[in-house]
Amino acid sequence: MKSMLLMKRWLFCFVALLTGAAGSAQAALWSGGELISPEIHPDNRVTIRVAAPDARKVEVTGDFLPVRQIETPYGKAEAPGLAPLTRLENGVWEYTTPAPLAPELYSYTLLIDGCKTVDPNNVHVARDVASVFNIFLIEGGRADLYKVNDVPHGTVSRVWYPSPTLGTDRRMTIYTPAGYESSGRKYPVFYLLHGMGGDEEAWVTLGRAAQILDNLIAEGKAEPMIVVMTNGNVAMEAAPGETADGLIRPTMHLPHTMDGEMERHFPDVVEYVDAHYRTIRRREARAIAGLSMGGFHSLHISKQYPGMFGYVGLFSAAILPRDGASSPIYADSEAKLAAQFAVSPLLYWIGIGKNDFLYAANAEYRHLLDEKGYPYRYYESEGGHTWRNWRIYLTEFVPLLFQ
Amino acid sequence: MKSMLLMKRWLFCFVALLTGAAGSAQAALWSGGELISPEIHPDNRVTIRVAAPDARKVEVTGDFLPVRQIETPYGKAEAPGLAPLTRLENGVWEYTTPAPLAPELYSYTLLIDGCKTVDPNNVHVARDVASVFNIFLIEGGRADLYKVNDVPHGTVSRVWYPSPTLGTDRRMTIYTPAGYESSGRKYPVFYLLHGMGGDEEAWVTLGRAAQILDNLIAEGKAEPMIVVMTNGNVAMEAAPGETADGLIRPTMHLPHTMDGEMERHFPDVVEYVDAHYRTIRRREARAIAGLSMGGFHSLHISKQYPGMFGYVGLFSAAILPRDGASSPIYADSEAKLAAQFAVSPLLYWIGIGKNDFLYAANAEYRHLLDEKGYPYRYYESEGGHTWRNWRIYLTEFVPLLFQ
Repeated sequence: MKSMLLMKRWLFCFVALLTGAAGSAQAALWSGGELISPEIHPDNRVTIRVAAPDARKVEVTGDFLPVRQIETPYGKAEAPGLAPLTRLENGVWEYTTPAPLAPELYSYTLLIDGCKTVDPNNVHVARDVASVFNIFLIEGGRADLYKVNDVPHGTVSRVWYPSPTLGTDRRMTIYTPAGYESSGRKYPVFYLLHGMGGDEEAWVTLGRAAQILDNLIAEGKAEPMIVVMTNGNVAMEAAPGETADGLIRPTMHLPHTMDGEMERHFPDVVEYVDAHYRTIRRREARAIAGLSMGGFHSLHISKQYPGMFGYVGLFSAAILPRDGASSPIYADSEAKLAAQFAVSPLLYWIGIGKNDFLYAANAEYRHLLDEKGYPYRYYESEGGHTWRNWRIYLTEFVPLLFQ
Repeated sequence: MKSMLLMKRWLFCFVALLTGAAGSAQAALWSGGELISPEIHPDNRVTIRVAAPDARKVEVTGDFLPVRQIETPYGKAEAPGLAPLTRLENGVWEYTTPAPLAPELYSYTLLIDGCKTVDPNNVHVARDVASVFNIFLIEGGRADLYKVNDVPHGTVSRVWYPSPTLGTDRRMTIYTPAGYESSGRKYPVFYLLHGMGGDEEAWVTLGRAAQILDNLIAEGKAEPMIVVMTNGNVAMEAAPGETADGLIRPTMHLPHTMDGEMERHFPDVVEYVDAHYRTIRRREARAIAGLSMGGFHSLHISKQYPGMFGYVGLFSAAILPRDGASSPIYADSEAKLAAQFAVSPLLYWIGIGKNDFLYAANAEYRHLLDEKGYPYRYYESEGGHTWRNWRIYLTEFVPLLFQ
């Protein structure tokens, strides 16, 4: 009618306005870079590019480049690869890998005149401790487990639970498998712990845990299960930015790290999950695993509560308590280990890389287990203390659970 | 005993190793910048700093700086503020705001020799369409609603639902209020929609919806409610990176944008939520609101299904269909609007900024509503088509729901 017709005459193309003068002003923050970077070529070579006409030097560093040997105050060490980008006439800088990359989820950052920051043309970023970097994925092989595929997807939730032991509410990430909402059935639970400097986000961002579980379950290689990813820093209620401390900077070193408090509070987690999810409440349906500090937590939690977990996974685990750690959690370790193995874990799994700085500590621990006749399964990979390995260990460990 | 003692002799300080030679090599990707940036001074002036000894020019752009007038191919327009950083002797560049900043959640990026990217010392980043930028928050006033405070927190879940209408599974973000898991009671549901170029992540990242709901509910200013944040681009199953399309680059322009398909499939969402959550299944307990394209969706969905929603919110909404949009959803608009207002919406709320490029279209629409005698509530703010306004509208709208 009249006013609708009047409006028709005023008709504007919404899209044109949004991207035109009036819109562009208000939308200026929306615009990222305009180049394709990374460009993954059909043969799996990769080009990184960035427009930086006024820069003097642009480099890329990341785990898709060959590791470098560098000198440090502590001696020789390995450092992530570094490669120079070449300036084209139009002010765009480019680097193309000389050879195809193997399937993997890779991380990288740029150095613009030495200033390390992310690729403005790649919105896919992840954080590890205090570093933000870009990611890209080369498909194929095991890396296809890290992809989102056309399979049923589980639900990923950030959930706050009360810890009576610590006297705080705390945040965790919970994966429930596809079909959980409708099935009415009960599920086994896998507790999956991060390393030092990490938090309840680490396994779903860097570890691709939701994709790995979705894909393994869809392929029939893993049982549908609930995965509970806690925050292993008891001094934090949640990941940086998710607490009343505000948008703080993450740090590696927090109070109460590896002092027994994480282990002491852990039954609060299990109790909350059992009370609020449809879980099978038996050790045969509970697994615990973690990387580095989270492997340490898994070792000591499973030993402290020997009836709680049927499956234990130590991924590049720290083994021994820190010097001076006086928590009763770490007392009588051998007796507790004996009690744990007396009830026969269904699986005690140890995975580590040949170059991991915790390799010797793990070899020593395996020696102890051998000596005592405690059975375990061992997986040795190439490489070191990296997310690349922890994703591999997850894909190896999960199919062994709850069979 | 012996082997444990042997291990004790091997004892290493885990933290020292992690940050020492062997650890640092494998951990090199963990290290972010070493400076404090942004530094929020006690008087709410803010310093941005970055180490860039080899850069020729470093600037900061963001919405905490005064807007600039610029010339564009379309004429004069406003652009985000820009300020130069000053190089100190040690190669660190700094900018400090001349005056305290008002409480707000701000966004910014750096330009290192003209290359626009994030501040390497600030891990708190957000994405809007294809742009990644840093955020910081100045406390006080309404901005305290955007903070994580020491209040009970709801659960935020990424959930996949089937859409029989579209023939795909799709991802949405669902907020359930603190206490939902234990209360056993039923809740009203608020459907909250994003704008063009956005996705199911937008309202929880840029919109701070979970914090706003947590805080308003804790203050007794809002009813506990479920908030459902869908993906309004029916050509996407989920946010970029969360689909089998891989780690793609987000775009503003997707097929099926504003062609009626989002509106047509929307009952699938309501049906899924009602089937899987403890909801009150009446229009008096259902609200729908959205920003820009999401306001357009809210207008047309609520008009298409007049018995579905008791509360409607249009935040900086697009009003009219795009030229050539031929969906039956947009047919008989006046008759459908008459049917909607015949059942008396409990609230029909319109919010827009004085400088919004959709201001005239909204004024025209209000004129139509006035002419017809359809009651609505109107909220006019300063500013334009920005998340700053959409957060404000959310804080204004939510307390009016389900009273």
